[in-house]
Amino acid sequence: MLDWGEKMESQESGPLRGLQILDLGNMIAGPMAGCLLGDFGADVVKVEHPITGDDLRNWPPMKDGRSLWWKVTARNKKLITLDLSKPRGQALLKRMLTHFDVVLENFRPRTMERWGLGYDELSKTNPRIIMVRVSGYGQTGPYAKRPGYGTIAEAMSGVPAFTGFPDKPPTFSAFALVDALAGLFAAHATMMAVYERDVRGSGKGQVVDVSLYESLFRLVDSQVIGFDQLGIVKQRNGNRMDEDSPRNAYRTADGEFIAISAGSQRIFSRLASAMGMPELSEDPRFSSNARRVENVEELDRIVAQWFQKLSLVEAMRRLEDSDVVAGPIYDIRRVFEDPHYAAREDIISVPDPDFGTVRMQGVVPKLSRTPGRVSQAGLDAGAHNIEFYRGVMGLTADEFEELRQLRVI
Amino acid sequence: MLDWGEKMESQESGPLRGLQILDLGNMIAGPMAGCLLGDFGADVVKVEHPITGDDLRNWPPMKDGRSLWWKVTARNKKLITLDLSKPRGQALLKRMLTHFDVVLENFRPRTMERWGLGYDELSKTNPRIIMVRVSGYGQTGPYAKRPGYGTIAEAMSGVPAFTGFPDKPPTFSAFALVDALAGLFAAHATMMAVYERDVRGSGKGQVVDVSLYESLFRLVDSQVIGFDQLGIVKQRNGNRMDEDSPRNAYRTADGEFIAISAGSQRIFSRLASAMGMPELSEDPRFSSNARRVENVEELDRIVAQWFQKLSLVEAMRRLEDSDVVAGPIYDIRRVFEDPHYAAREDIISVPDPDFGTVRMQGVVPKLSRTPGRVSQAGLDAGAHNIEFYRGVMGLTADEFEELRQLRVI
Repeated sequence: MLDWGEKMESQESGPLRGLQILDLGNMIAGPMAGCLLGDFGADVVKVEHPITGDDLRNWPPMKDGRSLWWKVTARNKKLITLDLSKPRGQALLKRMLTHFDVVLENFRPRTMERWGLGYDELSKTNPRIIMVRVSGYGQTGPYAKRPGYGTIAEAMSGVPAFTGFPDKPPTFSAFALVDALAGLFAAHATMMAVYERDVRGSGKGQVVDVSLYESLFRLVDSQVIGFDQLGIVKQRNGNRMDEDSPRNAYRTADGEFIAISAGSQRIFSRLASAMGMPELSEDPRFSSNARRVENVEELDRIVAQWFQKLSLVEAMRRLEDSDVVAGPIYDIRRVFEDPHYAAREDIISVPDPDFGTVRMQGVVPKLSRTPGRVSQAGLDAGAHNIEFYRGVMGLTADEFEELRQLRVI
Repeated sequence: MLDWGEKMESQESGPLRGLQILDLGNMIAGPMAGCLLGDFGADVVKVEHPITGDDLRNWPPMKDGRSLWWKVTARNKKLITLDLSKPRGQALLKRMLTHFDVVLENFRPRTMERWGLGYDELSKTNPRIIMVRVSGYGQTGPYAKRPGYGTIAEAMSGVPAFTGFPDKPPTFSAFALVDALAGLFAAHATMMAVYERDVRGSGKGQVVDVSLYESLFRLVDSQVIGFDQLGIVKQRNGNRMDEDSPRNAYRTADGEFIAISAGSQRIFSRLASAMGMPELSEDPRFSSNARRVENVEELDRIVAQWFQKLSLVEAMRRLEDSDVVAGPIYDIRRVFEDPHYAAREDIISVPDPDFGTVRMQGVVPKLSRTPGRVSQAGLDAGAHNIEFYRGVMGLTADEFEELRQLRVI
């Protein structure tokens, strides 16, 4: 375990206390993996270029010239600077390796090799090291060297093609979904490689190769086999589902939206009652889920008309009274007002030197005995240089100052 | 480790060999966690109700009366039947517990408690047991007991509200995104709890509480802090991004779509060259990313016009020649044809007793030394009853037959 000295210890409650992660990531995907592991008490030392810093620092939303996104993704992390493109930086990285279980990186493939920091080199210094590599297209294959932008990787996954409305273009996620997903896969794979090394006891590291496009592709379980066995090419169908009806988002009189998922006969009957039209569930057009899927246009028109006359509150009251599976579509304002979010403490307040406290999402998921914690928001580049290089690594004052002046750190 | 006898061993290459998972999940979210762990060699024993089976068995796409989705989500699993609502089934479950590291379930909260199978009961029998619980809203809070449909949980996450086009309703994922995500969080949290128990050495189990809505909410890093600090409520903006321009999906002459992400000045200049309009990058309306975001309507019109005159192949050729960050939007047909998917072996052929072989997505991500494998597609309910109950558990022939006749198994 890294010895930060007593005052730096803050990982009491996480299950991963004692796991040492060296986070060389930039922007979102790699650093997300570090963030997810840090939430649970892993000791995450995040490396930034001494001059440019992490690109996420310049990414909106910004307040007073500081990226709010950074405050979240860099939370809990110990921040040091190091220029890996310089020979002395590379040498320093190798000296660090014995302190770490995991090196996490998301440079373009071959970059680490160009710096003499490929897995073969790293494992010579520390055969136990687990090298977790995140990239747009993975470390192998004809597209490996392309720059790994989330948008393009998402396009390749097959998902946007069937997302959204038939009269609109394919629809992308409006946040960094594939990057975050790849980060989650990387965090999970880190733990699997640690299990193999430490619980099964091989004692050996290995390389984890995570790509953005495969992370999303993997989650769509029926897409490949559906095409292989039945030739199904999923089409854009708005918020309807081919399997289920009614399933849609309906607009209320006050311009809000409510989502309904009422494919089962039992729930559809309840919906019909809630709408004051119990006869609908006997109507031959709508008397089974299969019939409703066939007659979805007519059914959706009837359901939509009912919603158009009611406010969100009134519609939800009637649906809840009838135990229909329904829910309002929240924007972030509603998330902040919701009693369930509050009861689960999904939004936490975190101390921050720039803004006093900032609110952000809490630790997910919830572990009963070792829940993890967020002890600080993302700090300035190099905030822990002295503690790490002088304290943990034992650099002399002269060496530290020299490296600093040379902009190696 | 469960002793299945020699002929049942098939987990040679996974990092999780020796990890024993009892998968009580139904449909998607819970079973997805089992699937992800089974891919990497964990021994996953999946329990189904002896009469009804898993609801996913009736979920489309179906071929010859069999769910193709099931073939994927139940891959690698050992399949047994057990009625947990019967006292003898509950007693049998407790007898099983010593064989397992993890119990995975996604019943509605309080169901396991009603059956006398809450964590307190389970941990009395096996204090090392890790209980991983997946539900729509989590185990606590005012909405805990609501049925946990993916659509409604997604609505609550805040994401659909800002996904899609401003002149269309909020847009949902067109596959089981939140369920799959919750499954991935559950798999990851399983490994963290195992680490705490076995590597840090507490020797104790705990409860992991995963919810569908929090799984998606967690991944949108800047949403909470953006509202907290700046009052930002993200709006639907189609495939444009507030941060980046041009970023969109453009239609080609042959009706295909290409995604572009060219926010940086360097890449925008290349795009302008590829379009034969190098002067655009000097145009004061488009001379910086900030200016382009302001004038996105005009810019998108110019870019869209260029694409309208070219086929997908021709447009991609020109973009690649200029090193622009761009990619075609794939549907599943194109995924099957793509050389990079082929080189990465992202689509694998798996032996299946019903259909000979079936193709499905491979193991994600890629671990160099212990890659995992898929040894079989999802089989029939109870396919491994004899091996498990007689072989592993040591039930006598009489006891097995009695339980079978009582429909306990």
